[in-house]
Amino acid sequence: MLRQQIHSAAYLDELPGENELAIEFSVSRNTIREALGVLKHEGLIDRGPKVGTHVAQRKYDHRIDSLLGLKEAFKHVGEVRNEVRAAMAVIAPPAVANRLQLEPGGQAVFIERLRYLGDLPLSLDLTYLTPDIGTLILDHPLETNDLFALIEQVSGHRLGSASLALEAIPADAHSAATLQVPDGSALLMLERVTSLDDGRPVDLEYIRMRGDRITMSGHLIRSKP
Amino acid sequence: MLRQQIHSAAYLDELPGENELAIEFSVSRNTIREALGVLKHEGLIDRGPKVGTHVAQRKYDHRIDSLLGLKEAFKHVGEVRNEVRAAMAVIAPPAVANRLQLEPGGQAVFIERLRYLGDLPLSLDLTYLTPDIGTLILDHPLETNDLFALIEQVSGHRLGSASLALEAIPADAHSAATLQVPDGSALLMLERVTSLDDGRPVDLEYIRMRGDRITMSGHLIRSKP
Repeated sequence: MLRQQIHSAAYLDELPGENELAIEFSVSRNTIREALGVLKHEGLIDRGPKVGTHVAQRKYDHRIDSLLGLKEAFKHVGEVRNEVRAAMAVIAPPAVANRLQLEPGGQAVFIERLRYLGDLPLSLDLTYLTPDIGTLILDHPLETNDLFALIEQVSGHRLGSASLALEAIPADAHSAATLQVPDGSALLMLERVTSLDDGRPVDLEYIRMRGDRITMSGHLIRSKP
Repeated sequence: MLRQQIHSAAYLDELPGENELAIEFSVSRNTIREALGVLKHEGLIDRGPKVGTHVAQRKYDHRIDSLLGLKEAFKHVGEVRNEVRAAMAVIAPPAVANRLQLEPGGQAVFIERLRYLGDLPLSLDLTYLTPDIGTLILDHPLETNDLFALIEQVSGHRLGSASLALEAIPADAHSAATLQVPDGSALLMLERVTSLDDGRPVDLEYIRMRGDRITMSGHLIRSKP
């Protein structure tokens, strides 16, 4: 609950004292101390004798249901910039061709970006685009634009829907070094296929987000069983 | 991509050899070996000289958008049972009272369950229910029923919608021991407030899922920016 209150900015900077929290949650001071220890270990708070307990880092909330790019989603929070590590035509691996409904052995455009919010890396994004759209996108500045915005711009279509899967995975050595976290840190992994409003899948992404920096939230209406 | 192919059961048991995979993905055998090393470390595959590479564990896919309980969602996969660790009336902490729209200082019903699929723990669920519904639910067998099903049964209402947030967090010592994973393992944490079809929030849950066992997937239509 403390975690959720930090995310929702219930404490703007300093948290209440241990006694006050113990009363609020009807638990012992020891339990409060353990909980604060967990949150400190996750990097969410700083604590010290005499200085009290402070919010060290707030997680950024990315709406799962808005199909917005990071830059668009965080425009009120800070500047998103992309370090473009690869951007090129490739032969689509069969798994990619299958999901983007390409001919076996056909081309796709591959883009790898390390995405920063301010000075800190947020996510490592691997993207495959269909060749028609991907080739046009390679002519645009990828450092400062969301792919979602570029896809709509070059295709003349709106995005329509997305299929996604979310999992928690330990950071492998390469991802950990790139995202500046220890090996094995918890990453939020998003795999998403996005389609245009005419139903054609055009964008397959594998996004590794730092677990300590991003929450994905949404509002869902019960679908029929 | 290999990870996704394992999840989607593209390989029923044995994976293709390193050479074959290197050709399929247009990369070197070393790259394939590194990728397989990562997946082995995550526990998704077993590898050994002479025996080849086999799928060790498939992740179970829980639909993010269906508002189904685990038992209902996995009824074709295996038996879900719940170890009930607590089930009692409590004074709702302010954060809980606020989210469930209870009077400050009012009661709620707290339930803690460790949920198994077959012999392996899947998730550790902490739930707060509004007192009217929670009190009735305490009279039902919690070991073998989903709370969602019980809420609909005792309230006479259907569930309507849910607000949720997903994050990846490292397992704290208590959660790790309970879920039978090493300290610091990646957990998928779901926080969800579920409302009845009349809009009243009745169920606040904090669910810690083993990252190596569950994927949450969904299909989303673009909402208006």
